[in-house]
Amino acid sequence: MSLIETNQHDNHAESKSSPLGGVRGGCISIKSPATVANLVCGFDILGMALNEPYDIMKLKLIDEPNVMIINKDNYNLPTEAEKNVAGVVLLEIIKHNNNSFGFEVEIEKRIKPGSGLGSSSASAAGAAVGANLLLNNQYNNDELVQFAMFGEKLASGVKHADNIAPCILGGVTLIRSIHPLDIVQLNSPSLFVTVVHPQIEVKTSDARQILRKEVLLKDAIKQWGNIAGLVAGFEKGDTGLIGRSLEDVIIEPVRSILIPGFDAIKSQSKEAGALGGGISGSGPSIFMLSEDETTAKKAEAIMQQTFTELEIEYKTYVTKIAEKGVQLIS
Amino acid sequence: MSLIETNQHDNHAESKSSPLGGVRGGCISIKSPATVANLVCGFDILGMALNEPYDIMKLKLIDEPNVMIINKDNYNLPTEAEKNVAGVVLLEIIKHNNNSFGFEVEIEKRIKPGSGLGSSSASAAGAAVGANLLLNNQYNNDELVQFAMFGEKLASGVKHADNIAPCILGGVTLIRSIHPLDIVQLNSPSLFVTVVHPQIEVKTSDARQILRKEVLLKDAIKQWGNIAGLVAGFEKGDTGLIGRSLEDVIIEPVRSILIPGFDAIKSQSKEAGALGGGISGSGPSIFMLSEDETTAKKAEAIMQQTFTELEIEYKTYVTKIAEKGVQLIS
Repeated sequence: MSLIETNQHDNHAESKSSPLGGVRGGCISIKSPATVANLVCGFDILGMALNEPYDIMKLKLIDEPNVMIINKDNYNLPTEAEKNVAGVVLLEIIKHNNNSFGFEVEIEKRIKPGSGLGSSSASAAGAAVGANLLLNNQYNNDELVQFAMFGEKLASGVKHADNIAPCILGGVTLIRSIHPLDIVQLNSPSLFVTVVHPQIEVKTSDARQILRKEVLLKDAIKQWGNIAGLVAGFEKGDTGLIGRSLEDVIIEPVRSILIPGFDAIKSQSKEAGALGGGISGSGPSIFMLSEDETTAKKAEAIMQQTFTELEIEYKTYVTKIAEKGVQLIS
Repeated sequence: MSLIETNQHDNHAESKSSPLGGVRGGCISIKSPATVANLVCGFDILGMALNEPYDIMKLKLIDEPNVMIINKDNYNLPTEAEKNVAGVVLLEIIKHNNNSFGFEVEIEKRIKPGSGLGSSSASAAGAAVGANLLLNNQYNNDELVQFAMFGEKLASGVKHADNIAPCILGGVTLIRSIHPLDIVQLNSPSLFVTVVHPQIEVKTSDARQILRKEVLLKDAIKQWGNIAGLVAGFEKGDTGLIGRSLEDVIIEPVRSILIPGFDAIKSQSKEAGALGGGISGSGPSIFMLSEDETTAKKAEAIMQQTFTELEIEYKTYVTKIAEKGVQLIS
């Protein structure tokens, strides 16, 4: 295919074609998971998929080369395809197939837009994987990521893959490079994830705006020591090393200012036994990793208490790192 | 011990006490390997040990709390303990043992000082490990690294561990953090290493001086993508990923200016099939990684031709990543 600059490597993320199978012509339901991008020190390069929350999407092929969008939630997202994250992804796929068909898509968003939990990526990745299932898996995962990034572009102005990749592949993923695309699936230990989404607004564009364009070399060195430690920790399944490496000296000190309660939640959760954690994506959600459910629930209680005292509405999840990305339900 | 801020973690670099055994009171010979620090993108955090070249050191305990140094080479290094890299390490160990003994040490340096191949680290690490063997392995590896860093401090003014750690532990090591010390041994695939040492002088302090104190965030992100890829590549034994990740957008573009022939050697070696490579430490040595000896020798021929044409004296090595660090010979 001429579409995109993909890297053709042997040991790349493999196509999911075989396990899911193709269902051309039918109607399918999928679930598309929430994702945590950055993973503290891995700004713009690391991400992981969660078991919960997830969006539900139903897709079917139609004859006309259009995208019909039906929203099954109360978020009032645009139904015009060009303005909808799932819509632009499907339009690209239609265009790439010479406008020989179109899609009808029902979207039930359960991942709240603006939560920092990869809501737009879930729509974009769900659209790409769903369409591919209807097309007998004609695209490999790298190509699906490329299509889904059109949705990220619409949502945030930038073609990121740090939510898209784990949403499609599951587990913990590394985006070594965007140009050319080089996605590496990391080993992901069976960890619990506690998430709190305080109902405040932090726009991705604002969260990016407040970052300095230059960083001190000595801080960058600290950061890449931690990133290297985190990747080694995941690969070795060494939870102690993961915990010690969950430190961000560059982004978090700036962005955490936008999230009331952040410092208290982080320090108290670690005291309660959590391995560590930080801002999910560009916030405002906060996540903590734990080795067991008891600790994960202690972190949840700390989050609940903190935002209750701050009189900020919130929603919490105690879940796990998802082994799989977008999945066929029926 | 009160000496040093060590991190007491379960899965730390383990003490070598059992395999080597203690030889208190005797006289021992060890070999201490050359090391390549930085590994292209891993500035200040990654390093690897080489099978060749290596220094040979003989140590024995003496009654007086002094260090007697005998040089068995032609480098005219200081024999006054306070001014000698091995000497200061041994003095620290003597001090830590209440001045109850001293050391006599013979040093035959085969790793040329100023080569960028960890010559001072070989002396410092060899002194620490050798002394420890004579002291029934009373120190663990973290402590040995701490002692050896006194030698690095004398040599370069800074307490680095990116040569010291692989010199002591062997293989490929990550220094996640210096304060507190956190060393992670990475899996190291059985790769060939071609090294050329052009006989020009690049002082570590100069090589550090020319670096910018600030770096662009977007460059830092590229760099940590590559570091993450390199660590994942080592852990997975994925040589393709190692090759793609051997890219440095921050340090190499500046430092390589100090090394004539660098760009030609790098690009031609990669064309000849090498995975990649770059400056060893702060230079002037250049290294290339290859999957097989034939390719490693092609890289050597390219290095030889380049420096012959430039009329610069050089020395080359075709060797492998060393599985072990400092080793007892007799």
